[in-house]
Amino acid sequence: MRKIRVGVAGYGTIGQRLADGVAMQGDMELVGIADLAPTLALQALRENDMIGANGVKYNLYLVDGADRSAFDACDIPVAGSFEDLCKSVDIMLDSAPGGVGASNKAKYYEPLGVKAIFQGGEKNSVADVFFHGYANYEKGVGQNYLKLTSCNTTGLIRTVDCLDREIGIEKVAITIIRRVADPGDYHRGLTNALMIDKAPSHQAVDLMTIMPHVEATGILVHTPVTHGHIITVLATAKDGKKITREMALNAFRKHPRIRTVTIDEGFKGNASLFKYARDLGNRRGDMYEIGLWEDSIVESGNDIMYAINIPQESVTIPETIDAIRASMKMQLTREEGTAETNKYLGIGKFKALQKFN
Amino acid sequence: MRKIRVGVAGYGTIGQRLADGVAMQGDMELVGIADLAPTLALQALRENDMIGANGVKYNLYLVDGADRSAFDACDIPVAGSFEDLCKSVDIMLDSAPGGVGASNKAKYYEPLGVKAIFQGGEKNSVADVFFHGYANYEKGVGQNYLKLTSCNTTGLIRTVDCLDREIGIEKVAITIIRRVADPGDYHRGLTNALMIDKAPSHQAVDLMTIMPHVEATGILVHTPVTHGHIITVLATAKDGKKITREMALNAFRKHPRIRTVTIDEGFKGNASLFKYARDLGNRRGDMYEIGLWEDSIVESGNDIMYAINIPQESVTIPETIDAIRASMKMQLTREEGTAETNKYLGIGKFKALQKFN
Amino acid sequence: MRKIRVGVAGYGTIGQRLADGVAMQGDMELVGIADLAPTLALQALRENDMIGANGVKYNLYLVDGADRSAFDACDIPVAGSFEDLCKSVDIMLDSAPGGVGASNKAKYYEPLGVKAIFQGGEKNSVADVFFHGYANYEKGVGQNYLKLTSCNTTGLIRTVDCLDREIGIEKVAITIIRRVADPGDYHRGLTNALMIDKAPSHQAVDLMTIMPHVEATGILVHTPVTHGHIITVLATAKDGKKITREMALNAFRKHPRIRTVTIDEGFKGNASLFKYARDLGNRRGDMYEIGLWEDSIVESGNDIMYAINIPQESVTIPETIDAIRASMKMQLTREEGTAETNKYLGIGKFKALQKFN
Amino acid sequence: MRKIRVGVAGYGTIGQRLADGVAMQGDMELVGIADLAPTLALQALRENDMIGANGVKYNLYLVDGADRSAFDACDIPVAGSFEDLCKSVDIMLDSAPGGVGASNKAKYYEPLGVKAIFQGGEKNSVADVFFHGYANYEKGVGQNYLKLTSCNTTGLIRTVDCLDREIGIEKVAITIIRRVADPGDYHRGLTNALMIDKAPSHQAVDLMTIMPHVEATGILVHTPVTHGHIITVLATAKDGKKITREMALNAFRKHPRIRTVTIDEGFKGNASLFKYARDLGNRRGDMYEIGLWEDSIVESGNDIMYAINIPQESVTIPETIDAIRASMKMQLTREEGTAETNKYLGIGKFKALQKFN
Repeated sequence: MRKIRVGVAGYGTIGQRLADGVAMQGDMELVGIADLAPTLALQALRENDMIGANGVKYNLYLVDGADRSAFDACDIPVAGSFEDLCKSVDIMLDSAPGGVGASNKAKYYEPLGVKAIFQGGEKNSVADVFFHGYANYEKGVGQNYLKLTSCNTTGLIRTVDCLDREIGIEKVAITIIRRVADPGDYHRGLTNALMIDKAPSHQAVDLMTIMPHVEATGILVHTPVTHGHIITVLATAKDGKKITREMALNAFRKHPRIRTVTIDEGFKGNASLFKYARDLGNRRGDMYEIGLWEDSIVESGNDIMYAINIPQESVTIPETIDAIRASMKMQLTREEGTAETNKYLGIGKFKALQKFN
Repeated sequence: MRKIRVGVAGYGTIGQRLADGVAMQGDMELVGIADLAPTLALQALRENDMIGANGVKYNLYLVDGADRSAFDACDIPVAGSFEDLCKSVDIMLDSAPGGVGASNKAKYYEPLGVKAIFQGGEKNSVADVFFHGYANYEKGVGQNYLKLTSCNTTGLIRTVDCLDREIGIEKVAITIIRRVADPGDYHRGLTNALMIDKAPSHQAVDLMTIMPHVEATGILVHTPVTHGHIITVLATAKDGKKITREMALNAFRKHPRIRTVTIDEGFKGNASLFKYARDLGNRRGDMYEIGLWEDSIVESGNDIMYAINIPQESVTIPETIDAIRASMKMQLTREEGTAETNKYLGIGKFKALQKFN
Repeated sequence: MRKIRVGVAGYGTIGQRLADGVAMQGDMELVGIADLAPTLALQALRENDMIGANGVKYNLYLVDGADRSAFDACDIPVAGSFEDLCKSVDIMLDSAPGGVGASNKAKYYEPLGVKAIFQGGEKNSVADVFFHGYANYEKGVGQNYLKLTSCNTTGLIRTVDCLDREIGIEKVAITIIRRVADPGDYHRGLTNALMIDKAPSHQAVDLMTIMPHVEATGILVHTPVTHGHIITVLATAKDGKKITREMALNAFRKHPRIRTVTIDEGFKGNASLFKYARDLGNRRGDMYEIGLWEDSIVESGNDIMYAINIPQESVTIPETIDAIRASMKMQLTREEGTAETNKYLGIGKFKALQKFN
Repeated sequence: MRKIRVGVAGYGTIGQRLADGVAMQGDMELVGIADLAPTLALQALRENDMIGANGVKYNLYLVDGADRSAFDACDIPVAGSFEDLCKSVDIMLDSAPGGVGASNKAKYYEPLGVKAIFQGGEKNSVADVFFHGYANYEKGVGQNYLKLTSCNTTGLIRTVDCLDREIGIEKVAITIIRRVADPGDYHRGLTNALMIDKAPSHQAVDLMTIMPHVEATGILVHTPVTHGHIITVLATAKDGKKITREMALNAFRKHPRIRTVTIDEGFKGNASLFKYARDLGNRRGDMYEIGLWEDSIVESGNDIMYAINIPQESVTIPETIDAIRASMKMQLTREEGTAETNKYLGIGKFKALQKFN
C-alpha cells in the first residue's frame, strides 16, 4: 500500500516534533518541511546532514518571503518552494505561527486540493473539525481540514474523556499552572511572578467544544518555569454518581497516553518527568504521554480531584498523527487509529512494565 | 485602662511583623522581642537605634543558647534574658522555629503563668484552640494557649468563612500555587521546577479543623517565586443551593481583610500586589489584606470558583492580634475583636475608596 | 532662601522615587508629578490621599494624550496639564519613557526656559552634559540640560571614581550580572536562561564618556531575578602601580554611597540587600547605597577585583538630586553638592555605625 | 587488542553520562555500573531493558548498603555486588557522592589493584594527579589514581590552555555566573536571588594547580537557572604581549572541544546551547563542547576578555575518557589521547562545517 505523503509547514518547537513523529510512522512518508529562515533548529538539522528521526532525510522547502541567500550562507540545502512541497503531499501539517495557517489554506491548500491539520494557534474557523484523537476521532474521518486542540487541552481531554467513557462526566473545574516559556525561549519569560488570566480559561471553553456534554470552567496562572504545565482537575460524574479514588485510578492506568507516576518513585514535579524523558534517551528529551500523579488523586464529596503534567513541546504530536489517520481514512475508528499511532511512536510500551500495588 | 503587655519570641520574618503589629495597637505595649543571634533583621533594627514601627523602641532579650558577645560585636544592645521578658508580659507571641514553641511553653510559659499565641509551625497539640480571628474568635476567648492557622489557611478561611456566613458552605476543593521562598531566602529555593505534594494538602485539613462542618480537600504545587501564594477555590453551598458570581462578589467586597482587585486595574498577578504595597509606602512593603481577583470568579454548575493572593509574610498578623484580644478577653466577640485590630492596623480604609460598577 | 521648584515627568519606577527624593530635600519643593494613565502607582498614591514621602502632597498633572475621564473614574484628582506644571517649576526631572524626554524638551522645556535632568533611557544628545554626582559634578554646574548615567553605570562609577581619586585608575574590565526585570514587571521577564549581549556593554562605554581617562570594556549577562544587578570589576591602576586589598577597602569604606558588607554578616546576595532595606523600614523598601562585598575583594597581580550590588530602582536618585544642585548652582562643588543630597536622604548615617576589624 | 574494561560507580547525573561515554569508545568495554537505590535514572534504564548508549547493555551492581528488595520491587535486574564489579574491571570511574570515592579507594580499589578516576567532588588528596586532558595529559600517563577538574574548571581550562599554547598566558581573572541546579533537581534551588561566594573561587585556585605558571583569581555568583554556567575570562599574556581579538578567535576556532558561536546565529544565551543539543538529537540532549561567544571577545588594553558556556552535566565526560587513556597508557601523548576520545564521541565534526567570515 502506498504510504501517505506528509509535509510539515513551520519547523519550530512543534514542527520539528511533527516531522519526527511522521518520520517514525511506517505507513507515512515525510516528503519535506518548510520554513522561512535558517533558525538554530535548521542549523542543527544541517549539522546532522539533514538526517532527522528514524534515519529519515528532511528535505527543506522555503515558504514565501524566505531569503534563499541566508540559507546558502549557512550551507543549508534547499529542495524547493512551499508550493513545490504542497504539490507533492497528500496532507500538510501546518505548524506555522498563528494566523499563517489560514492564509496558507487560502493560497495553497484549497487551490491545490491538499488536506491540512492545523495546530492550536489557529482560529477554529480554519478547520471543519476541532479534533482530539481519543475524544472525537470519528468526527475527523475523511474531513479535509482539522484543527488540533492546544497542548493543555489535549492532555486534559485525555483524562476527562478517559473518565467519561468509564464513568460518565458532566462537569469539570480546572486550575492550570502554566509553564510560561519553552526551554530555549527568551522572548516570553516571566521573572519571579505568578500571572493570572481572566477566567474562564480558553482550555475549559475548548474542552466544551470537543466534549459538548460536559460543563467546564477554570482559572489559569502563569508560572516562571519551562518544563511542563500542571493542571488540577475536579471532575463531577453524571447523575450524582460518586467517583472513588479506585475507579479513577483504574481508568487512568489503562490509558496508553497517560503515565501514572508517584512522588515516592521520585517524580517530585514537572522537572522529574522532563529529566526522565532525557534519561530514557528519547529524541530531544521528549515524552508523548502526560504524567498523572497517583498521590494527587483525592475524593471531594462525590467528585474526584487529580493533577496532571503536560509536556508542552510534544504532547500534541500523537493526536496530530491521529488526525492524519482520520482525515486520510487510514483507520476509520478511534481504537484502530490511535493504536497505529501508538505503535509507531512506541507509546504504551511502559504500561506492560508497570506494577501496581 | 492598663495596656496589655506583649512579648515576641523570634524576630524572623513573622516575628518582625508581629512586633510591628503590636507596636501599632493603641491598647497594647510591646515589652520586647527575643532572639538567638544577631541576624540581619536585628542589625537593621540597630541601624535604626532599635526604633521600630510607630516610633516604638524594641527591647531585645536573648533566648537560651544565645552568645552575648556576638551581639556586643555588632553593637546591638541587650535588655535581658528570655526569662526576664516572659516575667514582664501578659502574653507571648511565639514565632520561634517549629518545635521551639512547645519547649518554650513547658519551660517558661506554663511555669510563669504566661499566655501564648503560637504560629502555624507548631503542632496543634501545643495549644488549647486552633484559632482564626474571623472563623472561631469566640472559641479563643479567655484561653491560655492559642495556635494560629498558617498563612495560606488564614487567607483561605477568610474567604470560605465569608461565603459560609452569607450563604452556607459545605464543601471546598482548593489548588494551592505556593510561593516557595520569601524574598531574601537562600535556603529553600526551587529553580525552574513545579514541585507537587501528596494530596490532600494540610491547608485543606486545617480548614476542616477550624470549620468542621465543611468538607475540604486540595492539591498543593510549589512554584519558584517569592511574592505571594495564589489559591484557587471551588466552593459548594449547602443543600444544593446555587452560588452566583454576584452573590460571591458582594460577600467578598464587604470583608475588611479581602481586597477585591481586577486585572484591568493593573493587578496582573502576585507581584502586582507586592509592588502595590510598596508603593503605598507600607512598612516593609507589607499588606495585611489578601487579594481576590474579581475577574477570576466563575460559576461551575451550582458551585463558585475564584482565585486569591496570600501575602505570606504579613497575612497572619491581624489574626494573631485578634488572638491576643480573644485570649486576654479584651473584646468578647468576633465583631468587636477584629474591628479593634483592623482600626489600629489601618485595615479596611481602602474599602471606603472602592467604587464598583 | 526660596526653595527650588521641581517637577517630575513620568511617575513610573524611577519617577516615583525621584518625587520621593525631592520631597525629602529641605531646600526643594516638589511642585508636582505628571503622567499619562491611572497606573497602579497613582492608584496607590490616591489611596494615601495623594500624600507621598515626608508628608508632602503630590499634585498630579496630565501629559499630552492623557484621558482625563480615566483618572476621574479612579477618583484621582488632577491639578492641571503638563504645560501648567512646566510653567510652575525651575527644573524638571524627566523620567518619561525613552525618547519622550527629547520631545518634551523641544515642545516644553526649551520654549518655556525650564531646565531639565534626563534619565539614562534618553540619548546623550538630549543633554549638554552626561552627569554623575561624584565623578563630574562641576561639569554640570549651571548647565541647562543634564542626563544621568543609567543605574548600573551610576553605581559602577561610584566605585571606580572612588579608587581613581585615591589611587589613579587607567583601565577597568567589568562583568555585569544584570537583573532582568523589576519587582512587579510582567513584560520583560526571562525564564531559566542566562542571556548575553554583544560586547562591549554600553555601561563600559558610558563610563568612558564620564571618565575619559579610563579605558573600559565589559560583558553583560541577563539573569532571571529582580533584586539588584551584581557587577564584578577588575581595575588597573595607572603607571603599573599595585592596588592592594587594603587600599581598595579603605577607599570604599569612606564613600557615603557605598555600603561595604560581608557574607558573614548575612549578606549572601542581592536579595539580602533588598530584604535589609525593607527591614530598615525604608520607604518602598529602597536603598540608595550600592552594596560592596568585602569578601569579594581579591588581588589579581597588580589589579584589584571586587563585586558590587546595584539596587536598580533607587540607585540613581541621589545623583539626580545632585544634578539639580549642580544645574541650579545650589552648590558649586562636588563635595558640597553631594553632601547636601546625602544629608536630606539620610545617606551615610550607617557609616558612623560601622565597625571594622 | 583487548578492550579496556571499565566500571562506573554512581549512576547519577555524571555517572550516567560517563557510562554512555565509555559505551561509545570502540576500545573500551563498559563492564557495569553501580548504585545504591532504584533512582529514576535506573528506572528509565530498566524501561529500556537496561540498554544504554550505542546499544550497550548496562549491568547493574549494588554498592554496600543497597537494599536488594527495593530493586526487585522495581523489576530492576542486579548483576552482582560492587566488589564483583571491581574485580572485573581494569579501571573504575568513580562518580559517587563526594567523600565516598575516598572510602571506595581504601576499601576496594587499592586492595584489589584497580585503577580509578575520581570526579571533582573528591578531595585532591585522593589522587596522584589532578588531571585535565588538554592541559596536563602526560602527567596522568600510567598513574593509578587521577582526579578530574570540576565542570567549570574543565571548560575554563580548555580556553586558557588553548590561549597559553598559542600565545603564553600569565594571569587570568574570572567571573563565574553559576547555574545553581541541574534540570530535575529540587534539593538545591535558588529563587529570585543572586548569591555570592567568598572570593577567590575554587575554580581559580584549581586552575593554578593544573597550570601552575598562571596566576588566577575570580568571583563566583550563583544564579537561579539550570542550563549551563557562563564564565567571563580576562586573560593577560606573558611579557606584556598584546592579545588581539583575532589572535584569540583563531586559537579558539581550532580547538575541537570549543564551539564558537554568535548571537546573530541565534545563540542568545545558555538555554540556546541546551536547546541546540536537544535539536541535534544528542542523547539526553547533551553537548560535550563548551560554547564560546565570538561576539563577547573584546580587548582590554593588552588583555583579552571573552565569555564561555559550560554544559555542566556533560562537559567533564571527554576529559574523563582522556584520563582512562592516560592512566591505562592507551595513548602516551595529549594529542593522541584526546584525538581518540574525540573520534569516538563525535567531537569536532562540526568544526569541518563551520564557515568563518
